Amino acid sequence: MPAHAEPPRGRIEGPWSSRLRVGAPGASVDLGDFDTGATPGVLDKDDGEASFRGTGKSLARLQEQLFAASTVSGGATARSVLLVLQGMDTSGKGGVVKKVAGSVDPQGVWHHAFKAPTEEERAHPFLWRVERQLPAPGQIGVWDRSHYEDVLVPRVRGTLSTAAIDDRYATINAFERQLVEAGTTIVKVFLHLGYEEQRKRLLRRLDRADKHWKFSPGDVDDRAHWPAFQEAYEAALSATNTEPAPWFVVPADHKWFSALAVQQLLEEALTGLQLRWPTASFDVERERERLLAT
Amino acid sequence: MPAHAEPPRGRIEGPWSSRLRVGAPGASVDLGDFDTGATPGVLDKDDGEASFRGTGKSLARLQEQLFAASTVSGGATARSVLLVLQGMDTSGKGGVVKKVAGSVDPQGVWHHAFKAPTEEERAHPFLWRVERQLPAPGQIGVWDRSHYEDVLVPRVRGTLSTAAIDDRYATINAFERQLVEAGTTIVKVFLHLGYEEQRKRLLRRLDRADKHWKFSPGDVDDRAHWPAFQEAYEAALSATNTEPAPWFVVPADHKWFSALAVQQLLEEALTGLQLRWPTASFDVERERERLLAT
Repeated sequence: MPAHAEPPRGRIEGPWSSRLRVGAPGASVDLGDFDTGATPGVLDKDDGEASFRGTGKSLARLQEQLFAASTVSGGATARSVLLVLQGMDTSGKGGVVKKVAGSVDPQGVWHHAFKAPTEEERAHPFLWRVERQLPAPGQIGVWDRSHYEDVLVPRVRGTLSTAAIDDRYATINAFERQLVEAGTTIVKVFLHLGYEEQRKRLLRRLDRADKHWKFSPGDVDDRAHWPAFQEAYEAALSATNTEPAPWFVVPADHKWFSALAVQQLLEEALTGLQLRWPTASFDVERERERLLAT
Repeated sequence: MPAHAEPPRGRIEGPWSSRLRVGAPGASVDLGDFDTGATPGVLDKDDGEASFRGTGKSLARLQEQLFAASTVSGGATARSVLLVLQGMDTSGKGGVVKKVAGSVDPQGVWHHAFKAPTEEERAHPFLWRVERQLPAPGQIGVWDRSHYEDVLVPRVRGTLSTAAIDDRYATINAFERQLVEAGTTIVKVFLHLGYEEQRKRLLRRLDRADKHWKFSPGDVDDRAHWPAFQEAYEAALSATNTEPAPWFVVPADHKWFSALAVQQLLEEALTGLQLRWPTASFDVERERERLLAT
């Protein structure tokens, strides 16, 4: 169907998306403007957890509708949703995945955690490995890290020129715009963690023998690069906060809040698809009679 | 490590596995011996649901330990678990996946639902497509249908000779034995549904407009093949109930029971791995000091 016949759907609208949107497309982002300990729109933890439970069922139903739409032949109505999670170590990406994806049918979720690129991945254009992990129609894709690592890390480590990184921003924007035009709603979330809170979380990993496996001495070394990473995030968010694929900044010092916020963003994204149950392609009464005769 | 140095672990032992095991390896299976409405070992639904909740946390912890073990360099301790779910239409395979996989971290679960083979898949040996969906070390693989479709369907449809199907049984047994020797614990579950209960479930899909998408007129046609499928299951279970990869028959007329039974089988399988948290490969006190200095 040509783009002009049906405008790209998948607009993310609602109180949570307007509250958490990083700003207008093209505007310069200053992370200092965002409080990592904020819990906007929620009274307290109890209130937040009650909202989370309340939305769980609605999200599960929306996910089932998304999946159901993809089973209809033709697939003109087949949409998908892609959640892109970025954030510093211990910002809670894994926990958000566990809580939010855990409230919907795991069969409808395509999850991938991107690690440091392998030799094979480095031999390809940087989008190659993420294109292989795109959600199928009907699925919710959940990416724990993403193609944004390929602009953040080179900037901090100085392994790519500014011009090369600018090229990558443009490539990312074109890639995401095409995805959206093809029917994918992209929800890009930066889990915004405080420097002090990260120290607490790393200390907790050292305190508990059952969390030692999650700790690496490199995590402490990386803290020296904290300001450079914040600056790289500001540059990436400024350059790639587009109309079709906007960025959301989710305060991440409170884990219950970041889980709730991502859940609500996903719910608003799915609601924006205006999903309906597919209508039966068979005669319901006739099938009932046939079935009763067995 | 040679097999004689460390005997293959991954024995599934406990009250649930002994209760649900189809029988001794090599013995002939008669599904008429198994009541599809039974709820062995559980008082009632409330009791069953309480057990399910109680085991959820333990299973989540075991899954985290399984995953943690795979992150240790060397990987000598890296194990995986593979849950193979088979059963007639509406036997609740999807529901079991949703409930059981939903109680552990989705990141540690590798789920795949096998459909009718595609042209590309049919051009390869029948195990080709399942080998591509094996869980990585540290993962719990969950297969909704499996390589068993490739012995069940040809037998019912008469598209392969008895000798060719016997060959496939032997291939399957060799394949599964190798998997177990390489460190995968295989939990094979037949969700045993009653003929009357299937009719009720199909009728329910017709009664609800939001379930029509799950219904296909072919489901009614397939009921004519019910006895042939039961017979094909008996043959397959008899031929592939091996010591390293035994079959379990889970009564499936009560959805709460089948979810509980599969959860308990998985828990016994994971407990059999005798998992421990990896020990820290760094000096915990030194890292704490470094961290406090940041």
